[in-house]
Amino acid sequence: MIAIRAARPGDGPALHAMVEALADSHGHLDSFEASPEDYERALFEDHPVISALIAETDGQAAGCAIWNRSYSTFRGRQVMYLQDISVLPAFRRRGVARALLKAIAGLAVEKSFAAVDWLVMDWNEAGRRLYESVGAEIEGGNCFCRLNGPAMERLAR
Amino acid sequence: MIAIRAARPGDGPALHAMVEALADSHGHLDSFEASPEDYERALFEDHPVISALIAETDGQAAGCAIWNRSYSTFRGRQVMYLQDISVLPAFRRRGVARALLKAIAGLAVEKSFAAVDWLVMDWNEAGRRLYESVGAEIEGGNCFCRLNGPAMERLAR
Repeated sequence: MIAIRAARPGDGPALHAMVEALADSHGHLDSFEASPEDYERALFEDHPVISALIAETDGQAAGCAIWNRSYSTFRGRQVMYLQDISVLPAFRRRGVARALLKAIAGLAVEKSFAAVDWLVMDWNEAGRRLYESVGAEIEGGNCFCRLNGPAMERLAR
Repeated sequence: MIAIRAARPGDGPALHAMVEALADSHGHLDSFEASPEDYERALFEDHPVISALIAETDGQAAGCAIWNRSYSTFRGRQVMYLQDISVLPAFRRRGVARALLKAIAGLAVEKSFAAVDWLVMDWNEAGRRLYESVGAEIEGGNCFCRLNGPAMERLAR
């Protein structure tokens, strides 16, 4: 049995463990700098930028989906942007990610978002298969650009 | 002379023309559905999801940058997500996009964002060269996933 609920105060450490597992699976543990307190603050401050769902199996936190409000300038409507979907290694291959996507879709319908957007790496075949199976359209050929703090400060001068 | 200012009420039609020019350049006019009123509402409602900068040359709107707050779960900090940067065809190749990026970087520093993130298509060589020249790190191999309204409703059921 998989149960999905909204994240609540105190979930910071569980979310931290789950995003860390995701960073590990993607070979990016070296760039994982967040603390449990960062999530606690980001989720429960005034006008929080992110929200999260937690998937539990037998009362244990097994996975999460972290999202924020975004906007499609082509559609002229708000969309949901899915930052991360993560399942702890011990709970993988049991339908947890699919259950999270279903709950995310339900939330997006409830909030009248026009769509749910996210990114997947092109080498992540299992992820792409899952996303296609739930009805997502996938467009390759995108590059992710990031202007990091120091470059941002140099350019701003 | 290029002057950059925050968008203000009444800029909806100018923004609409600029995003439409971007959709045209990308061969996506068929999926451009937004109206000037959509932008007017999205920018100036309570707790707006997007914000915009307008670039003017000789008092004429020449380009824009549209952004929203986002979050890096790996960094544990808020980041700026740049939805669009667009310059009207008549004003291209005059440094308008670079001036907008510089102003975006200044705003991101002012607001203590950890980074500025955006996407570029891998065929957009002029865009990629510009972004690299201002200090952006570019990572290829990303696929953009979208669960559209009808697919969202089917999955939610």
